[in-house]
Amino acid sequence: MDKTIVIIGAGNVATHLSMALKNAGYPILQVFSRKIDNAFTLASLVEAKAIDKLSDIEREADLYIIAVSDVAIGQVVEAMPEVKGVVAHTAGSVDMDVLNRFARYGVIYPFQTLTKEKELDFSRVPLLIEENGSVARRILLELANAISDHVQKANSAKRKTLHIGAVFSSNFVNHLYAIAYELLKKEGLDFSLLEPLIKETTQKALTMSPIDAQTGPARRGDRAVMERHKELLNSNSFYHEIYSILSESISKMYAD
Amino acid sequence: MDKTIVIIGAGNVATHLSMALKNAGYPILQVFSRKIDNAFTLASLVEAKAIDKLSDIEREADLYIIAVSDVAIGQVVEAMPEVKGVVAHTAGSVDMDVLNRFARYGVIYPFQTLTKEKELDFSRVPLLIEENGSVARRILLELANAISDHVQKANSAKRKTLHIGAVFSSNFVNHLYAIAYELLKKEGLDFSLLEPLIKETTQKALTMSPIDAQTGPARRGDRAVMERHKELLNSNSFYHEIYSILSESISKMYAD
Repeated sequence: MDKTIVIIGAGNVATHLSMALKNAGYPILQVFSRKIDNAFTLASLVEAKAIDKLSDIEREADLYIIAVSDVAIGQVVEAMPEVKGVVAHTAGSVDMDVLNRFARYGVIYPFQTLTKEKELDFSRVPLLIEENGSVARRILLELANAISDHVQKANSAKRKTLHIGAVFSSNFVNHLYAIAYELLKKEGLDFSLLEPLIKETTQKALTMSPIDAQTGPARRGDRAVMERHKELLNSNSFYHEIYSILSESISKMYAD
Repeated sequence: MDKTIVIIGAGNVATHLSMALKNAGYPILQVFSRKIDNAFTLASLVEAKAIDKLSDIEREADLYIIAVSDVAIGQVVEAMPEVKGVVAHTAGSVDMDVLNRFARYGVIYPFQTLTKEKELDFSRVPLLIEENGSVARRILLELANAISDHVQKANSAKRKTLHIGAVFSSNFVNHLYAIAYELLKKEGLDFSLLEPLIKETTQKALTMSPIDAQTGPARRGDRAVMERHKELLNSNSFYHEIYSILSESISKMYAD
């Protein structure tokens, strides 16, 4: 419990990660943000020092967590001083090797939608770990296991696949909800009518596997119902096309 | 509580509806199924008489519920004797007027995935009601309110829209889960890794509205990430196309 940590970034991921580490007993030495106000806000939450110059970074920390936007990671890496500790980023779709100017490095990727303002039980956030050697492995696994019950190793290729899986099962799913919301609203129907169905669908997919849980006209091959639905969607070419391609994809999955 | 009921059909919907009505204190007089064994199975659950000839139907019941497959509704209607009670079907995408040879008729549409073997708290199943007059209205609303806390009126047009909404937010959502499942499996990753993300996504959509809850590369307009994802999906033309059209649809929804 004596490992010391520097947090680079003060956004959603930086906030949740550093608070979880602090709560697990690890001292946060510094919080860096280009905007000193943001650094102060997070630093005060975790009793750390706020800094806005990467050259002010403490050289002797055990772990440096770079939790900034994907495009900013390269700039941070270039501007950071030499450090002996492990340097890790937190991005889903960025290769670990962006950190290879350091001796010991890795990735700690929290696989969840994190919103600063929304509280979250961090012990249930899956953490995906990758590292370049035994020192980085030991430190990253120790800290990850101290804050999450779902720590798993995943190399850069696997992490990218998970990121795509997240787009399909979270971003795209939410968009389908948004389409249903719009369709219902046009007919004066409340989205909350769908709540029991949505909850049951999710529960079934998670308990039975979504392959077995599939129902509906496309799975049954009920062409008459599908044609009637597509007619009703004719006024919106995007919704019509989404209906067609998803129905075809379902047919294909269960025809094979 | 003295209304008497005849159930026509012995499948998923017939089973859940008649058990809920029986539990609410309404006597089920008869259960009809072309297959007498199926009629017996459900009839024994609800202490009713099993029949396999529509001509044997009790003429004096208050309500006749036709809970058979969409295509069979017309045949049942033709073969049924004259009855004085209210006749209702339970289908999402079938017009109420299919029943217009009767004097009093309507629809009671349970808006949920019902599986015979899976127990369900029926009081939380939305019931959508349509009817052709005050007698049918009174009986259908009384019985619906006795078994569900979510009774709502919906004409045939609204019911069809809800059916499409259900396809988007349940059948298609499940297919996106199935795609994520397949993508992860190919990389040796377990679908359960997505569980916290899936639960949080659903919870956010239901509490915030899915329009506000949208996140991800398409919402942010992060072209670089989207192009990398599409490259990784090049080997499956369906998944590639689904990724493209859903991303474009998200861009369009938030550009307007």
